Amino acid sequence: MTKAVYRFGGGSAEGRAGQKQLLGGKGANLAEMASLGVPVPPGFTITTEVCARVAAGQGYPDTLAAEVEAALAWVGSVAGPRFGDASDPLLLSVRSGAPASMPGMMDTILNLGLNDTTVAALAARSSSPRFAWDCYRRFVAMYGDVVMGVVAPSEDAPSPFERILEERKHARRIEKDTDLDEADLRLLVAAYKDEVLRATGTPFPDDPHAQLWGAIAAVFRSWDTPRAQVYRRMHAIPSSWGTAVNVQAMVFGNLGDDCATGVAFTRDPATGTKALYGEYLINAQGEDVVAGVRTPEPIDKLAARMPAAHQALVDVCARLEAHFKDVQDVEFTIQRGTLWMLQTRAGKRTGRAMVKCAVDMVHEGLIDEPTAILRVEPAKLDELLHPTIDPAHRPTPVAKGLPASPGAAIGRVVFSPTTAEEWHARGETVILARVETSPEDIHGMKAAVGILTARGGMTSHAAVVARGMGKSCITGCSSIRIDHARGRMTIGGATVKQGDTVTLDGSTGEVFLGAAPLRPAQLGGELEELMRWVDARRRLHVRTNADTPTDAKTARAFGAEGIGLCRTEHMFFQPDRILAVREMILAKDAAGRRAALARILPMQREDFLGIFREMDGLPVTIRLLDPPLHEFLPHTREEIAEVAHELGETPETITGKVAELTESNPMLGHRGCRLAITWPEIYETQVQAIAEAASAAAADGIVVKPEIMIPLVMQAGELARLRALVVATMDRVLAAAGRTIAYTVGTMIELPRACVVADQIAEHADFFSFGTNDLTQTTLGISRDDGGKFLPVYLDTDLLPADPFAVLDQGGVGALVRMACERGRGRRPGLKLGICGEHGGEPSSVAFCHDIGLDYVSCSPFRVPIARVAAARAALSQGGGGPVGGTA
Amino acid sequence: MTKAVYRFGGGSAEGRAGQKQLLGGKGANLAEMASLGVPVPPGFTITTEVCARVAAGQGYPDTLAAEVEAALAWVGSVAGPRFGDASDPLLLSVRSGAPASMPGMMDTILNLGLNDTTVAALAARSSSPRFAWDCYRRFVAMYGDVVMGVVAPSEDAPSPFERILEERKHARRIEKDTDLDEADLRLLVAAYKDEVLRATGTPFPDDPHAQLWGAIAAVFRSWDTPRAQVYRRMHAIPSSWGTAVNVQAMVFGNLGDDCATGVAFTRDPATGTKALYGEYLINAQGEDVVAGVRTPEPIDKLAARMPAAHQALVDVCARLEAHFKDVQDVEFTIQRGTLWMLQTRAGKRTGRAMVKCAVDMVHEGLIDEPTAILRVEPAKLDELLHPTIDPAHRPTPVAKGLPASPGAAIGRVVFSPTTAEEWHARGETVILARVETSPEDIHGMKAAVGILTARGGMTSHAAVVARGMGKSCITGCSSIRIDHARGRMTIGGATVKQGDTVTLDGSTGEVFLGAAPLRPAQLGGELEELMRWVDARRRLHVRTNADTPTDAKTARAFGAEGIGLCRTEHMFFQPDRILAVREMILAKDAAGRRAALARILPMQREDFLGIFREMDGLPVTIRLLDPPLHEFLPHTREEIAEVAHELGETPETITGKVAELTESNPMLGHRGCRLAITWPEIYETQVQAIAEAASAAAADGIVVKPEIMIPLVMQAGELARLRALVVATMDRVLAAAGRTIAYTVGTMIELPRACVVADQIAEHADFFSFGTNDLTQTTLGISRDDGGKFLPVYLDTDLLPADPFAVLDQGGVGALVRMACERGRGRRPGLKLGICGEHGGEPSSVAFCHDIGLDYVSCSPFRVPIARVAAARAALSQGGGGPVGGTA
Repeated sequence: MTKAVYRFGGGSAEGRAGQKQLLGGKGANLAEMASLGVPVPPGFTITTEVCARVAAGQGYPDTLAAEVEAALAWVGSVAGPRFGDASDPLLLSVRSGAPASMPGMMDTILNLGLNDTTVAALAARSSSPRFAWDCYRRFVAMYGDVVMGVVAPSEDAPSPFERILEERKHARRIEKDTDLDEADLRLLVAAYKDEVLRATGTPFPDDPHAQLWGAIAAVFRSWDTPRAQVYRRMHAIPSSWGTAVNVQAMVFGNLGDDCATGVAFTRDPATGTKALYGEYLINAQGEDVVAGVRTPEPIDKLAARMPAAHQALVDVCARLEAHFKDVQDVEFTIQRGTLWMLQTRAGKRTGRAMVKCAVDMVHEGLIDEPTAILRVEPAKLDELLHPTIDPAHRPTPVAKGLPASPGAAIGRVVFSPTTAEEWHARGETVILARVETSPEDIHGMKAAVGILTARGGMTSHAAVVARGMGKSCITGCSSIRIDHARGRMTIGGATVKQGDTVTLDGSTGEVFLGAAPLRPAQLGGELEELMRWVDARRRLHVRTNADTPTDAKTARAFGAEGIGLCRTEHMFFQPDRILAVREMILAKDAAGRRAALARILPMQREDFLGIFREMDGLPVTIRLLDPPLHEFLPHTREEIAEVAHELGETPETITGKVAELTESNPMLGHRGCRLAITWPEIYETQVQAIAEAASAAAADGIVVKPEIMIPLVMQAGELARLRALVVATMDRVLAAAGRTIAYTVGTMIELPRACVVADQIAEHADFFSFGTNDLTQTTLGISRDDGGKFLPVYLDTDLLPADPFAVLDQGGVGALVRMACERGRGRRPGLKLGICGEHGGEPSSVAFCHDIGLDYVSCSPFRVPIARVAAARAALSQGGGGPVGGTA
Repeated sequence: MTKAVYRFGGGSAEGRAGQKQLLGGKGANLAEMASLGVPVPPGFTITTEVCARVAAGQGYPDTLAAEVEAALAWVGSVAGPRFGDASDPLLLSVRSGAPASMPGMMDTILNLGLNDTTVAALAARSSSPRFAWDCYRRFVAMYGDVVMGVVAPSEDAPSPFERILEERKHARRIEKDTDLDEADLRLLVAAYKDEVLRATGTPFPDDPHAQLWGAIAAVFRSWDTPRAQVYRRMHAIPSSWGTAVNVQAMVFGNLGDDCATGVAFTRDPATGTKALYGEYLINAQGEDVVAGVRTPEPIDKLAARMPAAHQALVDVCARLEAHFKDVQDVEFTIQRGTLWMLQTRAGKRTGRAMVKCAVDMVHEGLIDEPTAILRVEPAKLDELLHPTIDPAHRPTPVAKGLPASPGAAIGRVVFSPTTAEEWHARGETVILARVETSPEDIHGMKAAVGILTARGGMTSHAAVVARGMGKSCITGCSSIRIDHARGRMTIGGATVKQGDTVTLDGSTGEVFLGAAPLRPAQLGGELEELMRWVDARRRLHVRTNADTPTDAKTARAFGAEGIGLCRTEHMFFQPDRILAVREMILAKDAAGRRAALARILPMQREDFLGIFREMDGLPVTIRLLDPPLHEFLPHTREEIAEVAHELGETPETITGKVAELTESNPMLGHRGCRLAITWPEIYETQVQAIAEAASAAAADGIVVKPEIMIPLVMQAGELARLRALVVATMDRVLAAAGRTIAYTVGTMIELPRACVVADQIAEHADFFSFGTNDLTQTTLGISRDDGGKFLPVYLDTDLLPADPFAVLDQGGVGALVRMACERGRGRRPGLKLGICGEHGGEPSSVAFCHDIGLDYVSCSPFRVPIARVAAARAALSQGGGGPVGGTA
């Protein structure tokens, strides 16, 4: 076994900041601070390797005890007091410190080393028996809880130690802890120890060394608590890393009014403003700041209270930021006027602060542009691109669901898409609440500012559509019960009637009653500057998924370089054409279908024309009709009766047709290009509309670049046949209009078979666009609509690192995508490659797309800036990069 | 252009039997017969290359007209009469002839060259004006139908020519065609020609050369008729092959009572018995035999009627079989005592005859064992393996016809091919009853399990096609009267309405009302001998899919070497346990589920014990629970009420749970190993039942080899976790029972992702079993339940060569299977590989499994012998083979 213990303090250290993997973030930075000459209480770090050994069941290394004892002696020699000494005892803090920041996840013990003997010495040394006994009381409670497992019987009950404390205060008729006197505290220590013995059958350990080893073991154990596991999964931290243990001499911020403790950021973590930001408490220990029992004061007031200590803090913070070249989040204690730094780490910050700090630091010469780009977490840009709830006036949520589409939304609740549309038409701002949504609800979702569903996951219909529209959305809010009959819902115990106002926070999944105060989205100057640097360094083009001119316009404003996916089915659901669509589906033969399609054609032409106008000069990939036709048919008895009346059919005929078209597994049914193999006239009409719109746009001087995309191809033959149909129709219409417009024909690759035979398919394709939503469904055999029943268990038990519909499954789906790229380009070297699934806006997936050589990603309009940053980061990480060339 | 016309006749030929691809089967064999000195009317063959040119739109080669004219002159010089000659006209037959036999699929013209001039010459030469005018009448009708397209207005209506004929007979108050005199025939010819002009606007061609070129064009056209396409698809004949045209001097079997025409097989095509078998008609043309208008006589009666001609036929047949070393199917005509052979080809035969002939010919020294194996079409064994009517409980037949194709069939009667297809599509088992069948009925014959006709002999269209399809068929059942208008038939005095159930015994020709009791098939002596040769040459093991002891027993009798797939869900559906299963599903927590599962456990244990007993000494692969749980819940209101009552719940609770468990795409839902990831107790209980059953069996001296299979694995983590659960449970139960039983744990590979990461999965698997049903669904994105809406169009328009659920898609699904094999064995060299999808019993798929190195295939019990033969053929084709070694 290599060295297991690394010392720091007294102006030097055995470790350094670069050793986070071995010493944990806290330990490595304590060592770095000590080496820099920053005042750090002396201590030592037990390495993460020891944690890994323990987790593997191998126990401690043989040399550990000796190394710890030697380090303890060294700490005593630096600090003065010695551990376990009866007259001048060294007290210790024991804290965890993992390689990645895991705030609040791991447990901490303070004042370790106290017992009935050392408490007396502490009382004497501090001249405050009350202080010493309060430390002792806190230590016994903390140790009893964290190490010995004496915890509250239920989530809502107080812990046994709190209960005993409250009983004592009640008996003494006092309100504040600070009113307890030494006698009270002595009684409480005794009562706490009795409780430990009663609850565990084991006496509280009096031997400081036994206390220390108990605490070390507890830290290692705590690496595998459920809450630590949840945090790790949320932040993709491998279980194998382990945590280090930091053992450090105690300093006290609670020895009197010349003492204090606090936390500070070197810049404002919410706004990024360059100024020391934080708070402190006079005469307190660190836990008091965090626990919120007393209200701390802002850091600038410290300048008046303790000018020297404040100046020392300002200087140390400036040195730390200059040294680490990033915003620092520090913990400090002032003991009798002397500043001690207990921790420094990169400060967590909002998306807004992240951008401002990165850009400011470039201007300050602290970092260069590539570093600034690598400082920007793409996913956190999301909050800059949507309105948010003012954090200063955040109300208490009434319920919580899944944060399906970010941003805040305030509106009046309605329970049907039709009502949403009607109210929207009369100028109301509405929130659509549904059990779940379906394609028939699109018009209502468009009319709403936010969507709330009782069922469905992060990639349910509501979530996907809402993200595409850039609307706030919360899904899977299981506490909702909608009572359509009474026009109301219950939510988290409250009742909300149709028309009542609620607020959604799509970034957190929280629902609030009434209108919460909002802060609008602002694309500040810093973001624009950052995006210029980003665009200079990325190789991947970024397009958008957009079905309407409005979407296209939004996306273009966010920097989209074209449309990668224009779905045409939403056009079919428009109220002015759904009847013709239904007529088409119910027609008895091709002639009947053609007649109905002829009525849809002029409307589709206008749709495409509007999109071509917005995307003047940029490519527009149009996917021909994809969903199974039964999605367009009415389903309730009322709707069926209405359609039957409109079409002059009997309800029985319509019901029969609906039943005939119903499928066991619509995802694997009669959809995509299969529609056109059986009914070619559908695609023929769509292509005619595209060609006519392109002609009309060109006549207005618009530069149109149509790319026609055939969905759900499983083999070359389908594409060959439909390509011929597309080319014949385009050429016929363009020739009749006397126009020459270059266009391309390609295919979605969204079935595993298409990946396998991509070489054959490439012979008929100008481009491939990976539809990774469907490809994930088929490759993993998981229906996006049904995965909610088991995917949470997979995530909770580490069988999956992330939801495969949110983060591309690189090992499975990604491997097929890579295969398809290689086979496709092997046969046709110039083949254009892109991705248009939801993954196109997810940073790690974008990086993968960069790595395998795609030409572009396409994502929803609001994620375009995120994808641009992700693309630049991928290029920088690869050492590649360079400005974007060629065409999107 | 190379030579387009090949001559034959007069004891020599330009072609030979090996040129089937160029000359078609008929043309090549006519050439071979001519070269052998067998009497063949002279003629010539226009090659398939010309058909391919025409199909490609390139028209005839420039030299074709000259080649045909030269060949015509040569035919005249050999035959005597000259084509178009007014005094001694040569008459011709024009027939199609594709490289693969396509009986009844292509059109034939007889007596070509007749017009008002040549008919007189024919009348003079034949001394029979009536004969000449009857030839002329037939020719005009046939040519009008086939070349000029004058056909019946609907499926059930008579053709215009039949109508005119019937009107004439009615006017003359006669019943039989033979009662028409010369004057009638002259009138009919005139009326037929008028009808042609009326229907087509074109006069009937009088010029013999115009007639010939019209007929040649019609033959080429007929290659692409829908009925030809259907046949090609059924028999996997590429459209690119094309057909040849055979033009041959007419010989007449209808010049008088010293004339005859007939068909014969060198061995009995139904039983394989070695004896000339066939039938003939005195004074008739070939079409009369096939059309079934008159009922022909058995061939042995010819010996008495025309001893010399009969002996000549016997001699020729013996020479042909010795030459071709296979059963021959010949057509002949006797013209005024002289035998002419019109065709020879390998005889289609029943599966039973196929086996007997192959085995007998080995014993006769005609062929060797490998040739015999390669003569056996595995799929045709099917008919030997299906049940027959139990002789101990044989009901009284209601009618009897000719035993045209053996095997018993039970189904609901329909009277039109279209109804047969519709009913079949909705899952009905149907028997098609017709007066007689024609090539237009093929789609209905495919849909039916059995065919019953009122007219026609053993070699009628219905008989030939049914034998080819391996379907039960009874022809010439003259007691049938079909009343289409009322949708019913009378049969032997009884009335059978559409939809009524009947039973056919195709081996005896007997028809029974209702469903007769059936007896399982048994392997006969020849088949057992063949199977010994087969087993000595195959490398692949053959297992069975069996869920019950009965299935297991049947399969073992058919040679299964183990169970490759024992599904456990059927056990859950048993009436005695479905309530406990539902309780398990509806339980609120794991404890509730365990309680319900504990009640199922003893029953499952008995199930497994029964199977282990039957498979003593052989491996048994048990798949743990796979289907989504909602499949077990009640769905109708009545069922729900009943279950609610039984479980003491409200119907609303049950309805709610059913709704909660309902899935959008159950195929991609909460099923397979996902059930055990969320609810491990289900698999734990199943494994406990397996372990207890194995212990109990071992205690009885049974050798048990359990192989426990985890379904729907998509990644290594699932299998690792569930393998640990399986091993822990097995070892616990076996240890408690004090038994050591070797078992293995493996997985189904049925998701594309599993193929991609097969190397990782292999680390935790002792075996892979490819579930190609589900793998086909996910790889192609086609739900087996929904594909019916578009797959027929894919098949009809050549986008797919075969139904991918019947025949493994080697290019897509197969490529993934191959990848999984390579990756799995790359990581774990000893990994056992098998297949348990439906494809495991399909010959071409079995060959693929052999080629990629699987250890075994597993198929339904009745297909085990088929798979054994297919495996041997694959080994022989590869040149590999050798006896089966190792374990299954």
